[in-house]
Amino acid sequence: MKNICSLLPIEYPIIQAGMVWVSGGKLAAAAANAGILGVIGAGSMKPELLEEHLKKAIALTNHPERLAVNVPLLYEKTKEQIEISLKLGIKIFITSAGSPKTYTSWLKDQGCIVIHVTSSPELAQKCEAAGCDAVIAEGFEAGGHNGRDEITTMVLIPQVVDAVKIPVIAAGGLGDGRAIAAAMCLGAQGVQLGTRFVATQESSAHENFKEAILKSTPGSTMLMMKSVVPVRLFKNKFYEDVRRLEESGATRDELIKLLGHGRAKKGMLEGDMEEGEIEIGQVSALVKDIPTVKELVERLITEQRQALPPTGRFF
Amino acid sequence: MKNICSLLPIEYPIIQAGMVWVSGGKLAAAAANAGILGVIGAGSMKPELLEEHLKKAIALTNHPERLAVNVPLLYEKTKEQIEISLKLGIKIFITSAGSPKTYTSWLKDQGCIVIHVTSSPELAQKCEAAGCDAVIAEGFEAGGHNGRDEITTMVLIPQVVDAVKIPVIAAGGLGDGRAIAAAMCLGAQGVQLGTRFVATQESSAHENFKEAILKSTPGSTMLMMKSVVPVRLFKNKFYEDVRRLEESGATRDELIKLLGHGRAKKGMLEGDMEEGEIEIGQVSALVKDIPTVKELVERLITEQRQALPPTGRFF
Repeated sequence: MKNICSLLPIEYPIIQAGMVWVSGGKLAAAAANAGILGVIGAGSMKPELLEEHLKKAIALTNHPERLAVNVPLLYEKTKEQIEISLKLGIKIFITSAGSPKTYTSWLKDQGCIVIHVTSSPELAQKCEAAGCDAVIAEGFEAGGHNGRDEITTMVLIPQVVDAVKIPVIAAGGLGDGRAIAAAMCLGAQGVQLGTRFVATQESSAHENFKEAILKSTPGSTMLMMKSVVPVRLFKNKFYEDVRRLEESGATRDELIKLLGHGRAKKGMLEGDMEEGEIEIGQVSALVKDIPTVKELVERLITEQRQALPPTGRFF
Repeated sequence: MKNICSLLPIEYPIIQAGMVWVSGGKLAAAAANAGILGVIGAGSMKPELLEEHLKKAIALTNHPERLAVNVPLLYEKTKEQIEISLKLGIKIFITSAGSPKTYTSWLKDQGCIVIHVTSSPELAQKCEAAGCDAVIAEGFEAGGHNGRDEITTMVLIPQVVDAVKIPVIAAGGLGDGRAIAAAMCLGAQGVQLGTRFVATQESSAHENFKEAILKSTPGSTMLMMKSVVPVRLFKNKFYEDVRRLEESGATRDELIKLLGHGRAKKGMLEGDMEEGEIEIGQVSALVKDIPTVKELVERLITEQRQALPPTGRFF
């Protein structure tokens, strides 16, 4: 059974997700050092800050080939972000929140590996047609931005696997080794974990945010803002403000106005757990500690092996 | 690795879900004959009709011990439904949509096995405390009635497994053998499939309903009626009526009025795919044929074995 270690220069078929405000150079380097793909989330970074994080990551690892950049295509300056990354030797790009046609050919011409994030089998086919090397298929339970059809990881992965020939990487709701084994049974050739890596020593999430993850319960998150762009939020005061506004029949513009004050930075990076926007996945309820990335990756490897029947059969 | 075949008198750890309007005596008998648990969905049946279906199922199988009844506790006459079932020799009960305390002790005193349906780890613990033999943990992607916290199967199963000592049976979004293997990696000791069994020769779903499942796409269902009781609906004219009413800020009573005209029977049993309420799971998009139950069960067994690495390791 093939896995993405034949596509990417990593030891284990695991990707540390690139996320806004929490996955900088320190986290990505720790992931690369632990044998998995370390991804810097460029979404929240101006080009100069991205350059700083890339240089930091490269300095902190002996495996710069295991570093990648996640570039959400909905922000400005994505071209600049990619050019800086290329200049510093990055060869693996994860693109999302836009068309896979935008940069894939250009990046492939420069010898890069391109992976696009999808929440539907239809978009996965467009990614394949655009020349992407793989897709990350992300389910409804994932934190942050999300698809409109609310397709869960359990249902999405087999559909995407059936729809394309390129490797499928599962994301959304994967918090431990049991889920990694499950995702691979569904046909995924690798997995991407986000929420689980927020609660590590090396993530740049504020301590308040990490502590909130440890205390979260099964109902602590909800998919909101569906009339603007669906986003899974942690239930805090900001979430309540959004909920009240939505229930009152607020317009799209009123919702965008509430969002548009650096709320995500205030919450996730600066630790304002009342007024800040906290993007996190449903699986936060399963996260019980804040290990180092190395400890976490070793645990995930062990857990996924224990989740499988040693005989190759459950029944 | 233990599975529910040590609790239930079945060959394979699979339950054919009891569903309103589609799982009568014919489907349950076919399931029992195929080596799995055959469940009659009592929710849509008056006591006399349930008796008729039970007698039919018993006549059609040499394995009446593999028959069970699903009793949603939100309807009237549940006590009568249970008494008729007991009289006809049923020893396995699945209860849902109510407190696990209501009938569990009484049924246990009569030597029955009781399994309660839950959508959260908290309720699973209450089931265990009430003396249930197992729980069915059902995720957000499931058809029909659903939990308020929108917890998906991938995230729910590990949490319920960690929360209780009794066996956990996974449900919601399981449409083929890959998903069965995945659910068991998550720690489930068995699985319950609903939508997949609607599209079988022996289900009593109207042919129009079965055909609609074959044509359904990833975005064909949506969780609606959250202000009354969350229910996953197939997107048809009735769904559009519900959606418009909800978006217009309709009251709970207005929604209940729209629901309250035998719409589910009209759709699922009588085949009115415009005006009828069609309850179906997200996994309908993966269903591509209408096999016999025997063919389906054999296929599921084969698929789940193929989904697992024969060496016991993915990596």
